[in-house]
Amino acid sequence: MAKDKKMVEAITSMEEDFAQWYTDVVKKAELCDYASVKGCMVIKPAGYAIWENIQNELDRRFKATGVQNVYMPLFIPESLLDKEKDHVEGFAPEVAWVTHGGLEPLQERLCVRPTSETLFCDFYAKDIHSYRDLPRVYNQWCSVVRWEKTTRPFLRSREFLWQEGHTAHATAQEAQERTIQMLNVYADFCEEVLAIPVVKGQKTDKEKFAGAEATYTIEALMHDGKALQSGTSHNFGDGFAKAFEVQYADKDNALKYVHQTSWGVSTRIIGAIIMVHGDDNGLVLPPKIAPVQVIIIPVQQQKEGVLDKAYELKERLSGFRVKVDDTDKSPGWKFSECEMRGIPLRVEIGPKDMANNQAVLVRRDTHEKTVVSLDELENQVSSMLDTIQSDMLKRAKEHQKAHTYSAVSWEEFVEVINSKPGFVKAMWCGSRECEEKIKEETGATSRCMPFEQERLADTCICCKKPAKKMVYWGRAY
Amino acid sequence: MAKDKKMVEAITSMEEDFAQWYTDVVKKAELCDYASVKGCMVIKPAGYAIWENIQNELDRRFKATGVQNVYMPLFIPESLLDKEKDHVEGFAPEVAWVTHGGLEPLQERLCVRPTSETLFCDFYAKDIHSYRDLPRVYNQWCSVVRWEKTTRPFLRSREFLWQEGHTAHATAQEAQERTIQMLNVYADFCEEVLAIPVVKGQKTDKEKFAGAEATYTIEALMHDGKALQSGTSHNFGDGFAKAFEVQYADKDNALKYVHQTSWGVSTRIIGAIIMVHGDDNGLVLPPKIAPVQVIIIPVQQQKEGVLDKAYELKERLSGFRVKVDDTDKSPGWKFSECEMRGIPLRVEIGPKDMANNQAVLVRRDTHEKTVVSLDELENQVSSMLDTIQSDMLKRAKEHQKAHTYSAVSWEEFVEVINSKPGFVKAMWCGSRECEEKIKEETGATSRCMPFEQERLADTCICCKKPAKKMVYWGRAY
Repeated sequence: MAKDKKMVEAITSMEEDFAQWYTDVVKKAELCDYASVKGCMVIKPAGYAIWENIQNELDRRFKATGVQNVYMPLFIPESLLDKEKDHVEGFAPEVAWVTHGGLEPLQERLCVRPTSETLFCDFYAKDIHSYRDLPRVYNQWCSVVRWEKTTRPFLRSREFLWQEGHTAHATAQEAQERTIQMLNVYADFCEEVLAIPVVKGQKTDKEKFAGAEATYTIEALMHDGKALQSGTSHNFGDGFAKAFEVQYADKDNALKYVHQTSWGVSTRIIGAIIMVHGDDNGLVLPPKIAPVQVIIIPVQQQKEGVLDKAYELKERLSGFRVKVDDTDKSPGWKFSECEMRGIPLRVEIGPKDMANNQAVLVRRDTHEKTVVSLDELENQVSSMLDTIQSDMLKRAKEHQKAHTYSAVSWEEFVEVINSKPGFVKAMWCGSRECEEKIKEETGATSRCMPFEQERLADTCICCKKPAKKMVYWGRAY
Repeated sequence: MAKDKKMVEAITSMEEDFAQWYTDVVKKAELCDYASVKGCMVIKPAGYAIWENIQNELDRRFKATGVQNVYMPLFIPESLLDKEKDHVEGFAPEVAWVTHGGLEPLQERLCVRPTSETLFCDFYAKDIHSYRDLPRVYNQWCSVVRWEKTTRPFLRSREFLWQEGHTAHATAQEAQERTIQMLNVYADFCEEVLAIPVVKGQKTDKEKFAGAEATYTIEALMHDGKALQSGTSHNFGDGFAKAFEVQYADKDNALKYVHQTSWGVSTRIIGAIIMVHGDDNGLVLPPKIAPVQVIIIPVQQQKEGVLDKAYELKERLSGFRVKVDDTDKSPGWKFSECEMRGIPLRVEIGPKDMANNQAVLVRRDTHEKTVVSLDELENQVSSMLDTIQSDMLKRAKEHQKAHTYSAVSWEEFVEVINSKPGFVKAMWCGSRECEEKIKEETGATSRCMPFEQERLADTCICCKKPAKKMVYWGRAY
C-alpha cells in the first residue's frame, strides 16, 4: 500500500503549487521529457499518441473544407524573411540562424522557420498565375523554432510541432470567410473532441500577428484561472501579396493581388488538455482524444482464468482503444498508474466478478464505480465513454462560467484581477495606451474582443473615454 | 488537338534523356518544386499526398510490430554528435550548423539533425534503467538535413522527409532479429504496395552506415538500369551504447549495455516510384499508393445529363479514391493531364455511353480500353485496379530479372557494366581494395551482399583470390 501511494504522492497538489503540479503531471504521465538542448522537448509515446489523435481529427476536418497538405523547406534565407517589414520585426529577434553548411560558411545565412508565411508567399508568387489557380488552400504539419528565453513543456518551447495553413484568394471577402471558417474549425474541435470550451474573438492591434491585418483567436481558461491562447487565424489582406508580388490575372485580364490567410494550432494545446481537465491524481483525458480509452486490470491475475478473461474482454471491446495491464505490478499500483495517465475508463475483473458474470467500471473523471453485467459490457462501456466526454465538457464550461467576471470601473477591475483568477470582461476605448497601462499595472493582457459583444458600460475602464469594445482580459500562459 | 499534344510534348522521352525525363515528370505531374534555398524542395499537394499514403501504410505496419512514435528535437549539440567516433566522421562534413539564437551567439553550436542516433542514445541513457524498460521500439516521422553538394528532387536533397526507427534491446540476438524484421517490413511494403521488387541483402563494410556494426538494405532497379537504395536497417550492436553509456540492470542485477538498431525510409522512395513505373506520358502510380485511383472524365459535358451522370458514378465509386474532372478543359487535355499525373484508371462517360448504359475504362499502365456495362461498374473498377497493381509488379519483376546479369571474370564484368545497365552479380574476395578498384574503374558500387547467395565462381572477379561473397554491383542513384 505504501508503494501504491508513492506514485500519487509524487505529484504536488494543484492548490499547493499549480506550476509544479503541471510539471509533475507532464513528467509522471510520461508525456514529454527535457532534451539536451535547452528549451527543446522529447515527446514521449504517451504524449505523441495524443498529438497523433489531434492531427488525425484536425486533418480530417481540414480536408473536409478543401485543404491540401504540402511541405515547405525548413530554412528561410535572410533576404526572404526581410521582405515584409512588420513580419521580420516580429520574428527576427527570436529565430535560430544557420551560418554554416558542412565545413563551409554560407553566403547568406538561413533562419530555421519560426512560421512559414514568407516561404508560402515566395512559392505562391511563382505558382499562381490566373484566377483559375485560386483559391490555394494549403497546410503543412511540421516543427518550428522560436528562440524563447523562458520555456515550459508544451506551453512554450524553442521547438514545437504544429500545423500552419496558408491560403490565397481572389477577393478580400473570400479571405475573411476562410479566416473565420478555420477559427470555427478550431473552436468546434476544442469543444467536440477536447471537451474544452473557448471564447472566440479578435485580437487587438497590439496582440495581433506580425504582418496580419486581423488576428482571430480561441481562448481557453485553465483550471488555475489563467488563459491559454489555443489557436489563431489571421487575415493578411493583400499586405504580404504586395511585399512578395503575389499577383494573378483576373477574368478581366487585369493583374490583381491575392488576399491571404494563415492559421495554426500547436502542441501547446496538449498543455490546455492537461490544465483544463487534470486533477491531483494526474492527467484526465477526454475519451475522444485518449490514446487508450479503456484499460482492463485483472485482479488476482495469478488465479486461473483471470488473465484469459481479461484478454477475452479486450477482444469484445476491440471497437475501442483498449489495453490489458498484465504486468506483474500490484493492482493498486496499476490503478494509480492508469489514473496518472488519464485513461478515461478502467475495467476491473477478478475471480469474484467472474463468478458473478460482472465487471467493475471506474470512471477516471469522477472515480465513480459501477458494477455491470458482462452481458452488457460493450453497451455500458460505450455509453459511459460518451457520458465522460460530455460531462467533462459540461464541467469545463461551468468552470469557465464561474470564473468569468465583469468590471465597469478601474477599481473593480483591479480588485477582480487581483483576487479572482479568470477572465474579466470590461469595456475599452480602443487605445494602445490603455491596453499597455492595464498590462503594466495588473499583469492582465487583452485576450480578445469576443464576437459576442456586450455593452457593460459606456466608458473605458482605464481612461473613462467612450468605450468601443468589450474585451476579455486575463493573465495568460 | 495541337493544344492537347503540347502537354505531352513537354516531356523529354526516357530514351532521349532519362535524367531530363525524370525532372520533367516531377515538374509536370506537380509533385514538387524547387525552393528558394538551394537543394531544398517544396513538396506540392500531388507529391505530398503520395507521401501521406506511404506514411499511413508504413505506420500501420510498424505499429503492428509494436513500434511507438515519439518526437526528438531538431537540434544536436556539437558535443553530443562527437560522442561516437565513426558516426561523427560520417556526418560532420555534411551538417548545417546553427550558431546564433535570436540576436545572441550560442555558447555551443548546434547541428540540424542529419539523423538522430545521438539524440535517441542521449535519451535512452536517462530513460532506460532495468530490463523491464526493454525493448524500446521507438520511431519518429520528421525531416532531416544533409548539406549535399549536388541535389535532385526526391533523390538527393538538402532536406528530406523520412521516418527513423531507433530501438534498444537486452540482447544482441533480439537486436539482430529486429533489424531483419524491419528490413522485411520495408521489402514487403515495396512489393505489396509500391509494386517495386527489391533485392534484400547486407551492405559491405565500406558502404555501411557510420557507426553501424551491420547495415542491411533493399535495392531496387530503376527503368534506366541504375540501382536505388530504397530503405536501410542497421544493427549497432552495443557500440553506441558504450559511447553513450546506455545501460540497464538485468534480472541478475548486473549492469549491461543495450543493443541497438535503427532503420529508415525517406521521400527518396517517391523517386523510385517515378523511375520504376513511369513512361513517356508521365507518372504511373500503383493503385494502392495513388492519391486518386479513378478519374471520371465527362465527354461532351455541356450535353444535358452528362455531368450529373459523372457525379452519380463518383457516388457509386465512393469506396475508391475517386475524382470527377469537371473543369472546362477539353477532354483531350484532361486525358493527357490524368496520364501525366499517373492516375491508374480513367472512366470516360459521354452521351453515347449513357444511351448504351456503358462507360469506357482506360488503364493508365497499358492504355488498354474496355467498354463495361454500368451495371458492372463497381466490380469492374475494383478488379481492374487489382489487375493493374499486380501487372505493375509483374512487369517490374520482369524488368529486374531481364536486367540482372552475372559475370565471372574481370573482362566480362567490365563489358556488362559498360554495355548493359542493370545489376551485375559477381564474386568478391571481401577486400576494400577490390571494391574501391571496381568503383574507380567502372563507376559501379557494391549494392549489397544478397541474402540469397549463389556460387558463381570460386574467385574474386577483381583480384582472383578466393571469393567470399556474391555481390550485386551496379551504378546507383
